[in-house]
Formats: sequence, C-alpha cells, structure tokens
Amino acid sequence: MSCGTVADDRLRIDADRLWARHMELARIGQVGETGNCRLALSEEDAKARALFASWCRDAGLSLRSDRAGNMFAIRPGRDPSRKPVAAGSHLDTQPHGGRFDGISGVLAALEAVETLNDAGVETDAPLAVVNWTNEEGVSFAPGLLGSAWFAGLIDDEDLDAIEGPGGERFADAADRIGWRGDVRPDEMALDSFFELHIEQGPVLETEGDQVGVVTSVQGLRWLDVRVTGMDAHAGTTPLEARRDALLAAAAIVVELNRVGRASGPDARVSVGRFCPATDGPSTVAGRTDLVVDIRHPDETTLAGLVERCAAACQTAAEAHGCDAEVSQRLAVPPRAFDPSCVAAVEDAARALGLRHRRLPSGALHDASNIAPVAPTAMIFVPCRNGISHNVAEYAEKEDLAAGCEVLLHAMLARSGAG
Amino acid sequence: MSCGTVADDRLRIDADRLWARHMELARIGQVGETGNCRLALSEEDAKARALFASWCRDAGLSLRSDRAGNMFAIRPGRDPSRKPVAAGSHLDTQPHGGRFDGISGVLAALEAVETLNDAGVETDAPLAVVNWTNEEGVSFAPGLLGSAWFAGLIDDEDLDAIEGPGGERFADAADRIGWRGDVRPDEMALDSFFELHIEQGPVLETEGDQVGVVTSVQGLRWLDVRVTGMDAHAGTTPLEARRDALLAAAAIVVELNRVGRASGPDARVSVGRFCPATDGPSTVAGRTDLVVDIRHPDETTLAGLVERCAAACQTAAEAHGCDAEVSQRLAVPPRAFDPSCVAAVEDAARALGLRHRRLPSGALHDASNIAPVAPTAMIFVPCRNGISHNVAEYAEKEDLAAGCEVLLHAMLARSGAG
Repeated sequence: MSCGTVADDRLRIDADRLWARHMELARIGQVGETGNCRLALSEEDAKARALFASWCRDAGLSLRSDRAGNMFAIRPGRDPSRKPVAAGSHLDTQPHGGRFDGISGVLAALEAVETLNDAGVETDAPLAVVNWTNEEGVSFAPGLLGSAWFAGLIDDEDLDAIEGPGGERFADAADRIGWRGDVRPDEMALDSFFELHIEQGPVLETEGDQVGVVTSVQGLRWLDVRVTGMDAHAGTTPLEARRDALLAAAAIVVELNRVGRASGPDARVSVGRFCPATDGPSTVAGRTDLVVDIRHPDETTLAGLVERCAAACQTAAEAHGCDAEVSQRLAVPPRAFDPSCVAAVEDAARALGLRHRRLPSGALHDASNIAPVAPTAMIFVPCRNGISHNVAEYAEKEDLAAGCEVLLHAMLARSGAG
Repeated sequence: MSCGTVADDRLRIDADRLWARHMELARIGQVGETGNCRLALSEEDAKARALFASWCRDAGLSLRSDRAGNMFAIRPGRDPSRKPVAAGSHLDTQPHGGRFDGISGVLAALEAVETLNDAGVETDAPLAVVNWTNEEGVSFAPGLLGSAWFAGLIDDEDLDAIEGPGGERFADAADRIGWRGDVRPDEMALDSFFELHIEQGPVLETEGDQVGVVTSVQGLRWLDVRVTGMDAHAGTTPLEARRDALLAAAAIVVELNRVGRASGPDARVSVGRFCPATDGPSTVAGRTDLVVDIRHPDETTLAGLVERCAAACQTAAEAHGCDAEVSQRLAVPPRAFDPSCVAAVEDAARALGLRHRRLPSGALHDASNIAPVAPTAMIFVPCRNGISHNVAEYAEKEDLAAGCEVLLHAMLARSGAG
C-alpha cells in the first residue's frame, strides 16, 4: 500500500477508460451524432444510472441513495470515524445537451476512485462518488434540485410534490426509476465536495489553460422589465409621435451592454428573453417584456451593477417616450468556495505541471448548493468554443484526463493517503 | 328635382343615422364594450352583410356581387351609358378590431346615397356603394383581397384556392355565406372610387384638422433580417467574447430608428416582429430574426431609404461580431391618387368650411388596389390617439359626419347632379 503523491507514476488516471465511459453513457438518450437528451427521472436517466451503478459495483463501491434520488457510491476509508471526501456532478442533460456537462464530473470522480483501486492506495477518509439528481431542471423545475434538497434548501414535502411531465410527482418519479432511497443528509455529512465540470465558457481555451481553479460561483440576479408604450400602425404614425415599446426595449438591451462593459471583466449582463406584445411587422408594439441576466462574483459590486442596470432601463425607456417597470425575479448571492479546497485544487494543478488559472464560475452548479454545508471547490475543464447546452458541446480527452488527475490529487490531499 | 350644391341645406347628411348604423353593425361580432371581431367570410361577416344589404334594399339600391364576394349596391343615374361613381370600403375587422376601420367608409357611402334619396336629387352617373371582401386578411391571406381580384391583381383560380380556417377554400367560403356572385369586373367598370376611412394615425387630431385629403398611399418594403452570432452561456462568456445576436438585433432596431428620423417627416421605419432563437434568460442568443417595415410616399426616396436601412443592419450587426442577412420580402410601390378626384375631395372640404389638409396614407387600403383601374381618392377622418386595429379605436360622430359630407359632395361633383 503506497502513499499517493503527484510524483507517483502509479497514480496516473486512465484517460482511455474515462473517455470510453463518456462515449458509452452518451449512447443512452443519444441525439444525432454527438447530442444527448437525458432528462432527470426519465427512462434514459434510469438507464444511465443503472450503467453508472454497475461500474460502481464493479469498482467495489457500495451504493446508497436518498429521498431526492441522489446517488452516493462509497469507498471505505481507513478511519471509519471520518466523513467522506466526495466528488461528482450530474448525469442528466438538457433536451439538446451534450456528452460532458455534468457527466464528466461524475465519471472523473469514479475514475479517480478506480485509479486508487488499481494502484492499491487506501485513504484515511472514505471517498464518495456522487450523482446529484436533476441539475438541469428541465422537466422538474427548478434545477440543482437534488443538491438543494441535500443542503436543506427545500423541504421533504415540497420536494416530493414537485410536478413533472404529465403531472407526475417528483417522489413518484424517483420511486419509478428505483432510486428513491432513505439516506438522510446528516448520515451522509461530507468532509468536502469537489466538482469537476466543463467550463461552459471560452476563458480557458482562449487563454491556453488546461485547468480552471474555480474560486467562487458568481452571484446572479434576474430583472423582469416590462416596457410600456402605445400600440400604433407602422405606416401611419410619424416616428416622433410614437411610443414604440420594442424600440425602447432594444435601446435598453444596447444600453445594458454598455453598462456591463463599463463594469470590469467579471461583469455579465445580457438579455436572452425578449418578448414584444405583437408579432405583426406593421405594428408598433405597445409593450415588450424582457428579462435581464446580471452576474458578478462580488456581492457589493453585483448590487451596484444591478442598480445601474435598472436605472439604464428607466432612462432608455423614457428617451423613447415609454415607461419601464423593473422588478427582481431571482437573486442568487455569490458563493465563495472553501479556501483550503481551492488551494488543494490549485496545488494539484501546479504539482502536475498543468497550465491553470483561478476563475469564478459563471454558471450555477450543484457545488453552489453544497458549499454552505461542506467545504467545496470546483475544477473546470476547457470546452470547445465555450459551447454547452448544445449537441456541439465538446471537451478534449486530454483535458478531461488532466482535470481528472487534478481531482484525484485534490481528493487525496483532503482524504489523507499517507 | 334640385341641383346638389354644397350650399344646399337639403343635402346635409344625417349624422345620427350614420352613427346609429355604426353602433348597430358593431353588435355583430361584438368584443367587450367597444371591440369587434368580424373576420372575412365568417358567420359574423355574413350577418353584417345581411344587415347592410337590408339597408341598401330599403334605400332602393340593387345589389350585385362578384366572384370575390365584393358587394355593389347600385343607384341608377340619369345617363345609363355612364359608369358608376363608387364609394365604399370594407365591413370585415381585425380579431380585436374596432367599429370604424372600414365600416365607416361603407356606411358613409350609403349615407351619401340616402341623403340624395331623401332630397330627391338625381345624378347623371349611377352611384355604387361597395363592400370589398377581406380587406384585413386575417383568416384568408393576403388582405385587400377582394379589391385585388377586382383590379386584376390575382387570378380567378388563385383566388378560389386560397385556404382559410380549417382548410376551407375561399370559393367555398364565399358560397357558404351566399355572396359569391357572377359580376365580372369589366361589367362593373367604375367611373371613379372614393374611400372614406379613419386615419389610423395621429396627424389630423394633432393638427386640429377634421378632414384629410389623401393624396397617395405610401410605398412599402419589408426586409427580412437574419442576424447570426453564436449561442453562449450568459454567465460564463465574457461580454467582449460574445457574438450576441439579440444584442446585435437590438442595435439594428435602434440604428434603423436613427436612419428613419434622419430621412424627413414622411419616412416610416420600424420593427414589429423580433424573434430571438432562444427564450432562455441565461442564454446568449445565436440568432435573431426581425422584419423591418419601411414606407415613404416617394418611390425614389423609398429606394434610398431601403438601401440605408439595409446598410445599417450590416453595420450594426458587424459592430457586435454578428452577420446580418438582409432580403426583401415585400415591395408595394407608392400609389398616387387621381389629381381630379383628390381635387374634388379638397374642393368639397373647402366649400364646406372644414379644416383639412393633404396627407399621404400610411396604411394600405382597398383604394390602393383600385387606383390603377379607376380614378381614385380617399378621405381621412381623425381617430382618437391614432389608434386602430384595437378595441379602443374611436372616431367622433361629428368627424364622421364631416367626412361623409365631403364624400357626398365629391361624389356629386364627379357624378353630375346639375
């Protein structure tokens, strides 16, 4: 039984096995050549879980699940009093999702554990490979559901009652696929949690880095903006006599981008939902609704940014004779990851000689929910052109392997393999 | 038998009767307190036609209809060799339309004829009160259909085959409501055509005028614009790394407005259809489609305006790293009305002592189709806040009466009542 160190050649993960498992899982709910549709608690999710469970059992792990259907595959440690060092992510996908978002985090955790098995390395703390249920939130809203329940952010009753396709209750759906278990979160208290995930953005690729050391998850605000003007006929109403809500809303979008760009490289401001009240090409729209997505890793900066965005909505609407009603729909505070876990990831990347950089996560992840209940950090892997939630989503085999090595060594640092 | 002149007291139209008929028709297909839904060839259209026909018969008019269901109510003239001086508009409405758009033109024509009846005034030329089928084009596209067929802009077979709700052919629908007749356009060649219509814009109201002397119908172009960028995650992708098609399309809308405002008071440029490829608030849209509506009374100016708009689309898209593909979907040339008919309207307004102004029509009307086959002009009546295609559409009884007086005297000038 050897000590797991970065220099230890026997502790190189098996990049081919890791890749092959991605490809095998991707055949469940395959969409076209490279896409995946594996909605949470669907039959495809059930099949993916069964395959994952078979790999876990082959690796000698014991499987348990909880009320939310979260799966925990446990490798015992030398010290039974210690809580497990966990890693994982999610196996569900978007309806036109890819083969890596979520999946890579679960498979990398499994690969890390199997690498230890293959090398005969024991750890002091137990290890846990986790599959969180329903990260994507497509058919059972909201997303990040399994980790939210685990972290106590949602009650048992509320969880059970969430309705999915055809009105099926979440509890019944979790039963149906056979993964509604009885593990309580306090029985499964985690020493720490590491989540490897594709970046879903272009920073690592652009900068030529192989590993992202994720320091935090950005805070998020959604603003609902209703722009009200006056319906008019596009042919009859002189331009200066109009109160064109679509034009005012367009000016708002342009102005919000200006505000975002003036707020530093970490600011994110965008509009992805833009709904004029009319679809008629010859109508001047009397109303347009839009949703503004605003993010920043720092809460104070985020609050200031939100204020400037709301003010910009008012100013731009008034400049076109319209009114803007702005209300906050969603507020998720920034979540800083645990400094010691972040350091474990960074140390591993450095020791492995991988090009790496610290960065915040732009997207929400299960790790955001787990961070308040266990020391947590994330590892980002570059993905091609920053594309995700798309059948074109792609991560290089070598990058996945590098991220997995980092995960392995961060887990080892935390779990003690001396 | 007297000579009809403006000074003749017996030739004042009956404002109460005109108003009461508006209100009675508005009960057919009534929507809420003040709205109307009377789609062409619907059961409501059939009922409205029956009521209109009963008024025509009571007025001693003979009714005929054509293949398109257009209705012609004829009052004979003293000279059987002369072609009829016609006036009218349409009885169909938008789904949430009002009580005046179209209806006022038909009822004013009927009121003009009845005023002559009441006064015992004969005319040299016959008079015709016309109801054109399917001006609005809601369930049988395109609009202005009856007048288009009458003017030879659409073949018999193409007309018959147009499909409406449930796949019903236009010919069958016109048969079903009992108004598919056998009058050929050459049998019903018109001496001239006058159409009274609410302005559907704010100019007359704003300027304090009671009558609009319509000189022309603006030319119209629709540009289809497809803005292509790159899908991205709103949280992960730095602002400067984006190719945000929704943002680029918004910048296009703002820029088009600038181009329009710089092109003189008669230019109209707007976007009423704006369709991002995504509805997700946290998605950066990779594609957005929009339709630009561009109008001007002068063809050369219109062509230049269209060019500047297309160039603005390209420039604004490129400024945001996107591409814009611009294609022309629709081109309707400007239509100048007949100078002698326009003069007849203007002379009548002046002789009646009504505040009036010349102006182009921003919207298309059946008169646009008739202008190439008969000397044509239009009379606009102010409508409150320029609103139309809306249950709030409203015209004052006094303004309708004033417009109707102008129509009567323009028809008299044309038809000869000496």
